Amino acid sequence: MKSITSRDNAFYKELKALATSSQARRKAGRSLLDGVHLCRSWLDLRGAPLHCVVSEGALANPEVAAIVAECEGLHAPVTALPDALFGAVSQVENGVNIVFIVESLTPSKPAGLTESAVLLDGVQDPGNVGSILRSAAASGIRQVYCSPGTAFCWSPKVLRAAMGAHFVLDIFENVALPELVRGARVPVLATSGYASEQLYTLDLREPVAWVLGHEGQGVSQELLDLATHRVAVPHAGKVESLNVAACAAVCFFEQLRQQSAR
Amino acid sequence: MKSITSRDNAFYKELKALATSSQARRKAGRSLLDGVHLCRSWLDLRGAPLHCVVSEGALANPEVAAIVAECEGLHAPVTALPDALFGAVSQVENGVNIVFIVESLTPSKPAGLTESAVLLDGVQDPGNVGSILRSAAASGIRQVYCSPGTAFCWSPKVLRAAMGAHFVLDIFENVALPELVRGARVPVLATSGYASEQLYTLDLREPVAWVLGHEGQGVSQELLDLATHRVAVPHAGKVESLNVAACAAVCFFEQLRQQSAR
Repeated sequence: MKSITSRDNAFYKELKALATSSQARRKAGRSLLDGVHLCRSWLDLRGAPLHCVVSEGALANPEVAAIVAECEGLHAPVTALPDALFGAVSQVENGVNIVFIVESLTPSKPAGLTESAVLLDGVQDPGNVGSILRSAAASGIRQVYCSPGTAFCWSPKVLRAAMGAHFVLDIFENVALPELVRGARVPVLATSGYASEQLYTLDLREPVAWVLGHEGQGVSQELLDLATHRVAVPHAGKVESLNVAACAAVCFFEQLRQQSAR
Repeated sequence: MKSITSRDNAFYKELKALATSSQARRKAGRSLLDGVHLCRSWLDLRGAPLHCVVSEGALANPEVAAIVAECEGLHAPVTALPDALFGAVSQVENGVNIVFIVESLTPSKPAGLTESAVLLDGVQDPGNVGSILRSAAASGIRQVYCSPGTAFCWSPKVLRAAMGAHFVLDIFENVALPELVRGARVPVLATSGYASEQLYTLDLREPVAWVLGHEGQGVSQELLDLATHRVAVPHAGKVESLNVAACAAVCFFEQLRQQSAR
């Protein structure tokens, strides 16, 4: 384990840039995983990080110590920082001070929509995007396609909300969704509160692609027109709509329910 | 319509306190509804607000103008502020500048758990609480009980995330949940990722009470022990859990699906 004690250290400066600047993360193609849960998930699902950074104070925490030992076993570099220096690196308040530097996973371009997938059409809120990724991964969906207007998936907020879902998904960003949908080889279901077709009347036992839209405006008219079905989650009350991440969870798990009942 | 031009105006000071201080809101028993959607929902579901406040610039917006006209028709006071003064009152960035002052709805104490309900046991994140309220209202649930550690429901963030669900729900805060569950006259289903009983094996056609827990620690052991069932949403993937609001949506809508299929 190395130690850094100076703010002028070149690696510390790089680390701080990754922690604070989305531009730096995009340019480097790297992300920062903040906290025990995300680091543990990465180790279990993806193996060694590029770098493990801990605060000196956190080394006494048994979960942190275990992660550090595993990183060293995998020959991943580990660096300890004085707690005062670590503060500028972590965005988790009162968190346990450990971060991984990892490569943002950018899968190669897939052949197209041939299996169950999620298409995010301008979903803006990082918490919603993260929750949708988490629900997709938990329900067995493996591909996510994001339009240019959707929140950047490898941002710290999305990573935190998705709780490790990134590490088991293929996430394609800046995708021209209309083109993707035109070439789809599975039915494309666009969610809309105004749709006349209802979720529970659909046969979801075969793969489908779900389209989820902007928090206020919903799925764009172009994608609604291109989709195989426009689907509403039936309501029973005076409240007109669902949060987009709640809607996603209901759709994905109805699909899983039907698949499991087969 | 009145106009205020001075920051020293007593009503303006009161308004600013309600906008910025949770203590002021609790003490007054009043809340601020921020933006067109919440104000429109209140008008449609609850009628006149205590006060409608708009920025002068927003009066040109047709939705705002319609709300203002309805308030005046209902003899609710309307006050216009110069845009510069309005800024300190609204927390919605780039929003349309209209707020309602309303009474925080505090329903009288109910007889107990005799119909479908949601129990929030230490849910911390205002976005999660708001999304759960919204899903509950959309699925036809009418009662929500919150433990002392749950986020305050009438905060601006929860109000914004719930999109008007507050106005059709009976929300009971600071409730001793174990006592409530002990006296329950409907089955109490505590959600837990570790439960052996699975959501889709349950008969949900009759009323039930759902218990949802803290984002990290889940439902407290005491409530897990007291509950009639401990229920997991079945997964199909390597990701271990769902966001609590996503879990809630899946449960509430599975209940609605079963009820509708009856």
